[in-house]
Amino acid sequence: MKIALAQFNPVVGDLSANAAKIREIYSRAVEQQVELLILPELAVCGYPPEDLLYKNHFVEDNRLELESLAADCRDLTMIVGFAEGRDDMIYNSAAVLQDGAVGQIYRKALLPNYGVFDERRYFHPGSEPLVANVKGIGVAITICEDIWSPVWLLDYLKNAPDFQILANISASPFHTGKFGLRAEMIRKYATDFNAAVCYCNLVGGQDEIVFDGRSIIFDSKGKIQAQGKAFEQDMIIADVLSEDSGVKVVSQHPTPTLPGDEIDEIYQALILGTRDYTAKNNFKKALVGLSGGIDSSVVACIAVAAMGAENVTGITMPSKFSSADTKTDARKLAENLGIDFMELPIQSIVDDFDGCLQSVAGWDNTSIAYENLQARVRGTMLMTLSNQFGAIVLVSSNKSETAVGYSTLYGDTAGGFSVIKDVAKTVVYKLADRINQLARTEIIPASVITRPPTAELRDDQKDSDSLPEYELLDAILKGYIEQDKSAQELVAQGLPADDVLRVIKMVDMNEYKRRQCPPGIKITAKAFGRDRRLPITNHYRPKI
Amino acid sequence: MKIALAQFNPVVGDLSANAAKIREIYSRAVEQQVELLILPELAVCGYPPEDLLYKNHFVEDNRLELESLAADCRDLTMIVGFAEGRDDMIYNSAAVLQDGAVGQIYRKALLPNYGVFDERRYFHPGSEPLVANVKGIGVAITICEDIWSPVWLLDYLKNAPDFQILANISASPFHTGKFGLRAEMIRKYATDFNAAVCYCNLVGGQDEIVFDGRSIIFDSKGKIQAQGKAFEQDMIIADVLSEDSGVKVVSQHPTPTLPGDEIDEIYQALILGTRDYTAKNNFKKALVGLSGGIDSSVVACIAVAAMGAENVTGITMPSKFSSADTKTDARKLAENLGIDFMELPIQSIVDDFDGCLQSVAGWDNTSIAYENLQARVRGTMLMTLSNQFGAIVLVSSNKSETAVGYSTLYGDTAGGFSVIKDVAKTVVYKLADRINQLARTEIIPASVITRPPTAELRDDQKDSDSLPEYELLDAILKGYIEQDKSAQELVAQGLPADDVLRVIKMVDMNEYKRRQCPPGIKITAKAFGRDRRLPITNHYRPKI
Repeated sequence: MKIALAQFNPVVGDLSANAAKIREIYSRAVEQQVELLILPELAVCGYPPEDLLYKNHFVEDNRLELESLAADCRDLTMIVGFAEGRDDMIYNSAAVLQDGAVGQIYRKALLPNYGVFDERRYFHPGSEPLVANVKGIGVAITICEDIWSPVWLLDYLKNAPDFQILANISASPFHTGKFGLRAEMIRKYATDFNAAVCYCNLVGGQDEIVFDGRSIIFDSKGKIQAQGKAFEQDMIIADVLSEDSGVKVVSQHPTPTLPGDEIDEIYQALILGTRDYTAKNNFKKALVGLSGGIDSSVVACIAVAAMGAENVTGITMPSKFSSADTKTDARKLAENLGIDFMELPIQSIVDDFDGCLQSVAGWDNTSIAYENLQARVRGTMLMTLSNQFGAIVLVSSNKSETAVGYSTLYGDTAGGFSVIKDVAKTVVYKLADRINQLARTEIIPASVITRPPTAELRDDQKDSDSLPEYELLDAILKGYIEQDKSAQELVAQGLPADDVLRVIKMVDMNEYKRRQCPPGIKITAKAFGRDRRLPITNHYRPKI
Repeated sequence: MKIALAQFNPVVGDLSANAAKIREIYSRAVEQQVELLILPELAVCGYPPEDLLYKNHFVEDNRLELESLAADCRDLTMIVGFAEGRDDMIYNSAAVLQDGAVGQIYRKALLPNYGVFDERRYFHPGSEPLVANVKGIGVAITICEDIWSPVWLLDYLKNAPDFQILANISASPFHTGKFGLRAEMIRKYATDFNAAVCYCNLVGGQDEIVFDGRSIIFDSKGKIQAQGKAFEQDMIIADVLSEDSGVKVVSQHPTPTLPGDEIDEIYQALILGTRDYTAKNNFKKALVGLSGGIDSSVVACIAVAAMGAENVTGITMPSKFSSADTKTDARKLAENLGIDFMELPIQSIVDDFDGCLQSVAGWDNTSIAYENLQARVRGTMLMTLSNQFGAIVLVSSNKSETAVGYSTLYGDTAGGFSVIKDVAKTVVYKLADRINQLARTEIIPASVITRPPTAELRDDQKDSDSLPEYELLDAILKGYIEQDKSAQELVAQGLPADDVLRVIKMVDMNEYKRRQCPPGIKITAKAFGRDRRLPITNHYRPKI
């Protein structure tokens, strides 16, 4: 049997456009004599539809699109994800479209409700396995989370009818390291069930998450026989042949070039996340505030890769604390990238605020308030240009500073999308090196990479005046945020107690700032946003 | 048996302080010869602890506090909520503290995972009823959601041992109209089970939610015999006497003055929510931008009621579009409230931005960008003062404008807490009237209430230039947001199709703005924030 896995990029809520894309995929599959076409989880409505599912008319509209797909796509069997309303419940379901009608339906049994997932908020769990018969071949259907509990799945499918293919349709958000885990877990099912395993994953950016594609087909020996591209739409076609000893898979798909390492993965995820957030929200143009520092330089490079140099404008807004070097570097970067560049000095505006504030008893223009004022004047300037020209402001705050609140709310955090919000400062450096390597030229000036980090909001300021060195900071943050370790555990692993306590307090105290930051792309196992839900009002304190 | 229901105000995460408050309550109860003391859901750690529950050390610390409470509070039986870690699961549990030890434990069976609730994210459901024996009286213990499904509860307790008291410990977030529903539902259990019902609810503000207290004791005839205060800490004491025909309750608690109507309720909820958010986050002082309009006037009144006139500063920031009338009204309001008042004109700063932007091709100082610029200069000014003086900025955006995005991000939305974020404009007017009635004087000048609403960001601007009249707008918003109705349903109920489509589009398009707005107090069945989770990237469109 010839099967195809179509990893495609739907838009949440765009029911008829998603259905149109599926029809187009169907046509291509039919041309290639495909007999079974598999599409990802919730392909009709996009993932995650969130509270759209509370709207009865949304669930109804998604059913109508499914029925119309069934009617139109008669020349093969299709397995496609949709949101199923039934008896006042909603299920995360996979429909088997066959012979012009919606045939059997499988309902996802395991509903993730951790991390970025809220599936128990909406869906009722299914409880019955389904093995569809496609041209005499048994296809056991599962949806995403169903395969993430191997012990449960083996038990669940124990009494199911015989099958030669285990299909899984997924919308599995990317984070670094996940692909290896996922592939290894799936591989085992091939031998456990003596079946081919077809894993079809979504592709695309949706708000804070990115789906990485990389669909896979294993033969029943657990060998990868076909694989989809990473971070791109793709259709993998293969022949699946049931033999006495097992299931053979003969790929008709070229082997894709996959990311070489974690930094490659992150870079591609950030480009796709930025491209899709901007395009799906109808932004053609972007503005990036260029400080001459490493964060904004990397963000500008990602913006160019995602949107094209002709659509990105770099804006530098020097104050009296901006050095000649950073001003030069901002301009040089813009030249290297071939983007529009504007210099809008802010000092006179800051001075005017300062003058106005002289009437206020207690105003001190050497305080942190004055530092933040400069950042807010810049934020206001960028947002004014954004409003005037309909261009989105891309924010350059990294995860390290977002964690400890080393940023000015409505200042450097102001904008529509926060590209490197989940990228630790130490990883930003690696991205900068990689960007220059890939370009085989110094896109980001070397001085940007070697200069000690500074916010330039007062004379001779260095990040290290306020924060531990980034290597240490990032180690503490990884343990505290991504692994939920206590201060005691972090100290026990060798991190200095003073810094651990100081950093944890900064993280906890700055929850209010993060709550008002723009969305940004998740690339780690735990990002700020839906992934990590902490109260602002929280008196729990670290102790050692 | 003498029982007490202690509705108290814990702080999330403040384990030892919460335990200290419980000890203090215990001492008072012992003085009054109380034999059974009932405290609310998750009293030890506060509600909701959210992702703090992912930290093993947090759950462990909360267990240690519980054990120390048990050891210290030997002179009566206590039922108290805590987060229970057990066999790699976490339960939302109620411990019976008796004879110096943690005795039986009841585990919440129904875990809400809708609206503001994420309990399935953390907790494993219990499955066994528990009837504790306290001095020979059977006390069936339930936790919050357990009593919100009457059919389920009757079945769940069907085979439980005999009980004379049904106890429910809750952390039930306030919204208008909920109290009546809740009381009616609880009342029925009294007669269904022929038992007294003791409902003990939390009090206090926690980020976006407010718990309203109003604990109740019903006798087995379904008559309210004792009731706690609304929006205040309180301890209700009563004798519960088991008789042949049922359970008698003799209150020793004075009947509290409860809110007279919905507007009273809302006003009290907003005061408590503001007081607790500011106090629990260590703000003594607040700043309110006073435009001379109704929203900021009402917010200033709430701030004064919550924090004291001596802790509130009103700041007016006129531009060339500010009328003499609104400037006068801002000043008059401040005088009436007895708060500090500052006038900081912004026109020269706006002009300076404008001058700087003249160098940008395409800049238009008659555009909406220029309107937003003014709001952002004000936001920057307020935040600068906030940083300088450690005072929180209270935001005055109402629910109607938050819904349709009739606000400037980082402008009038800038601040730490958004007091009337869930209050529709039409309700803001009712609050203004009520505030003046309660004060028996015109605190809010009549002209503020009668003037047609205007943002004063250009000449002769009126809200009605951009929006439907507020009566109509609020009707559409209630149907669309709180009831999830479709455009078709709204039109079918008699609302004009053009306005319905226009408003729905505005609501959908402005999700990105709401995502960056400060937290504010939930007072309706569906507030913006955790309560309503919609994707920013969303192409689902209304149709008629």
